[in-house]
Amino acid sequence: MKIEDVNALDSDAFISLFGNIVENCSLIAAAIWSSRPFSDVDDIQNQLNKFIDLLPRNGKEGILRNHPDLAGRLAAAGQLTRESTQEQKAAGLDTLTAEEKEKLNKLNTEYKAKFGFPFVICARENKKDAILKGLEHRVQNDLETETLTGVEEVKKICRLRLLDIMENHPGAKL
Amino acid sequence: MKIEDVNALDSDAFISLFGNIVENCSLIAAAIWSSRPFSDVDDIQNQLNKFIDLLPRNGKEGILRNHPDLAGRLAAAGQLTRESTQEQKAAGLDTLTAEEKEKLNKLNTEYKAKFGFPFVICARENKKDAILKGLEHRVQNDLETETLTGVEEVKKICRLRLLDIMENHPGAKL
Repeated sequence: MKIEDVNALDSDAFISLFGNIVENCSLIAAAIWSSRPFSDVDDIQNQLNKFIDLLPRNGKEGILRNHPDLAGRLAAAGQLTRESTQEQKAAGLDTLTAEEKEKLNKLNTEYKAKFGFPFVICARENKKDAILKGLEHRVQNDLETETLTGVEEVKKICRLRLLDIMENHPGAKL
Repeated sequence: MKIEDVNALDSDAFISLFGNIVENCSLIAAAIWSSRPFSDVDDIQNQLNKFIDLLPRNGKEGILRNHPDLAGRLAAAGQLTRESTQEQKAAGLDTLTAEEKEKLNKLNTEYKAKFGFPFVICARENKKDAILKGLEHRVQNDLETETLTGVEEVKKICRLRLLDIMENHPGAKL
């Protein structure tokens, strides 16, 4: 899909295609549609980053809260979004040993109790060992640092989802 | 449901219950969870209004874009959210004559082409005649006025959805 094809989408088609590049936050895709025409993928990403950065802290926390727990309840029930299912699988989170799963759940619970949002990490850029280490490290951060760290991970996830869509959707088929 | 029951909800339960008080914008409910404990329903509404008011203009436009057309394609296909289905019915939009439907569709199309988002009005506070008149009037506004007018309607819709939830969900059943 070329950038001209993206720029030709009406808002409904744009939201339908890009609505989940930030997990469960279609408002963000709906907002940046205002910035068309985009010059390239970087421009789309920059508009998204700008929107996220301008949100007050509770908005950034809200973005993180709209993410699922890693290897959590929704994954076990098969209720993750399509994108999250693929990402968690790519990180090997569907092949955790019982011991790893217990450790991850314990740390996830501790993390969520401390910060009020789930641990978010770009699973496609980290295998399960790195994720467990990252969680052990990041749970020690303070709230402000961790909100910003989580949001930077969201931007990385967003980038990969954006590239997937551009690669896999021929404009002609839209 | 009492305010104490709301304040006792974890973020997942809160988002699940209040995620659609702003149509298809669960990010907003996810964000204001940070402001617990709420003192009462007005406090929830005030936090929502504050979040919406602080959004840059593209964010406000994004909220409007996440709303369906009145008596539009989604309504015809039975694909509206539960809340929108009830609201559009309450306004009598499911009993439009062929002539009224044609007029509404023509004005909706004109409105959306001009502003880049659909016409949003609190359908439960307006019957179909008032909606048609409102649309004829508001399509003449400029973009900035109409973005703010639409957002004020969103707040009214939100208020009624909020009251519905508080009335219809006994805390004990959550």
